[in-house]
Amino acid sequence: MGYAPAVAQHLPSPQAPAEAAMLPSDDLIALAHRLADRAGEVVRPLFRAGLTAEDKADGSQVTRADRAVEEAIRALLAEAAPDHGVLGEELGARGAGAELVWIVDPIDGTRAFLTGKPLFTTLIALAHRGRPVLGVIVQPITGDRWVGAAGRPTRFGSPGSPVSTRACASLAEARLSSTGPQYFSAAELRAFERVAARVSFTSWGGDGYQYGLVASGSVDLVIESGLKVHDWSALVPIVAGAGGVITDWQGRPPGTGDAGDIVAAGDARCHAEALALLGG
Amino acid sequence: MGYAPAVAQHLPSPQAPAEAAMLPSDDLIALAHRLADRAGEVVRPLFRAGLTAEDKADGSQVTRADRAVEEAIRALLAEAAPDHGVLGEELGARGAGAELVWIVDPIDGTRAFLTGKPLFTTLIALAHRGRPVLGVIVQPITGDRWVGAAGRPTRFGSPGSPVSTRACASLAEARLSSTGPQYFSAAELRAFERVAARVSFTSWGGDGYQYGLVASGSVDLVIESGLKVHDWSALVPIVAGAGGVITDWQGRPPGTGDAGDIVAAGDARCHAEALALLGG
Repeated sequence: MGYAPAVAQHLPSPQAPAEAAMLPSDDLIALAHRLADRAGEVVRPLFRAGLTAEDKADGSQVTRADRAVEEAIRALLAEAAPDHGVLGEELGARGAGAELVWIVDPIDGTRAFLTGKPLFTTLIALAHRGRPVLGVIVQPITGDRWVGAAGRPTRFGSPGSPVSTRACASLAEARLSSTGPQYFSAAELRAFERVAARVSFTSWGGDGYQYGLVASGSVDLVIESGLKVHDWSALVPIVAGAGGVITDWQGRPPGTGDAGDIVAAGDARCHAEALALLGG
Repeated sequence: MGYAPAVAQHLPSPQAPAEAAMLPSDDLIALAHRLADRAGEVVRPLFRAGLTAEDKADGSQVTRADRAVEEAIRALLAEAAPDHGVLGEELGARGAGAELVWIVDPIDGTRAFLTGKPLFTTLIALAHRGRPVLGVIVQPITGDRWVGAAGRPTRFGSPGSPVSTRACASLAEARLSSTGPQYFSAAELRAFERVAARVSFTSWGGDGYQYGLVASGSVDLVIESGLKVHDWSALVPIVAGAGGVITDWQGRPPGTGDAGDIVAAGDARCHAEALALLGG
């Protein structure tokens, strides 16, 4: 499988977001779709499979599914793109110094997966010199899939249609979503609640899936903390390519600090209002 | 459409749960399935339909879907079971003094519906002299459907297969789920947190869908408050028919008091532990 020469373009660090991004080729996007297809094939038979098993510890059930998905993705990458690096949540890094590195969260939303809620996803990102330029969120039970690539509109489906975020002039109109209050520190929770007090309503649950809903325009604002690089990398091109804004709580690119704090909004006006309140 | 003579059996009030329940006939269960089918036909085209509409207020979008589903269910009931009463969340009561009354929540989980999360449901219950003897939880996007009927095992699917709750010897093993912390009063939230501190983990979000997951054994415990009669009626035969326990926070039948407080557990041991902590 060959990739477009655009891959060779030199790129800035993640801390210099204003410079031009590498633009993923059709072939790279097709590969991302194949990885998402494969993840779904592996995870579907495992979802709710342990429902009546009495003695299965939560850890083992989810680890088994996590590993199976990540192994399948790695096997496909080793065959289709042997020069690319891989950074997976479960199985670590291979070729992490490569120009192009795939960043994989095989099962994002392990609590949703364990409780049988079809909101867990597989998150697949491609980073060029540390910067996410391609991202996939795929929910294998409903078939929901968002694909974002630098330079293109985010699409929902396969091949699907372009989606865009919803206009939201102020927090008063905003539908806020977050996975759960327990992921915030006490200080972060107070900051979150300053925002939550101003929005139209708060809906809980969703992990990475929520950011696809921002891209599609049914969620206006997601505020979270504690996300790791495999949690947020895929989300960046998806939210940005649908017209949204995704940063840390200080307005910097995600991953600038160590807290894994994220604010994603469909409308820059909501994003700015949220940042101001989060900052105190 | 005729119903079995079992309908004529006299029944105790909800406060006397130890006495025998009316056992719904095959025809009544088939009617419940038809109502669930009809709800799905109506709601599917409305889900995410307003995603790109910029000026639609949250209230109007959900009210439109709520009314459309309830009207469709009422029309089918008027034709198929004109002697039965109907109590709907949106359109009020008709024949509420009848021996058999259908209790309908056309869209349970309006925030999930609005944010595009496929966890909202239609809840359909049949109460005999005030006591729920048949219940359906249907999620029209995923097709998930739970049907519980007094005297029969709860089934998942249509016609589907029997399901049962998961054994869970103590809270330490329990997967706890609740829709969101904002539905609790401050005192209730403190009580909830006493339980949450003991469980394996807490997953947020899900409304009525969570109780289907208890029946299927992927959630061990749901604790909520503020539920109305149309929110909880369908859940009672579904949880009970799968081997679970569903009461208010004092161990009484749901709806005994006015708070709409509910504890549903797959295993009576978890239920007892949770009640003890909720009571302080």
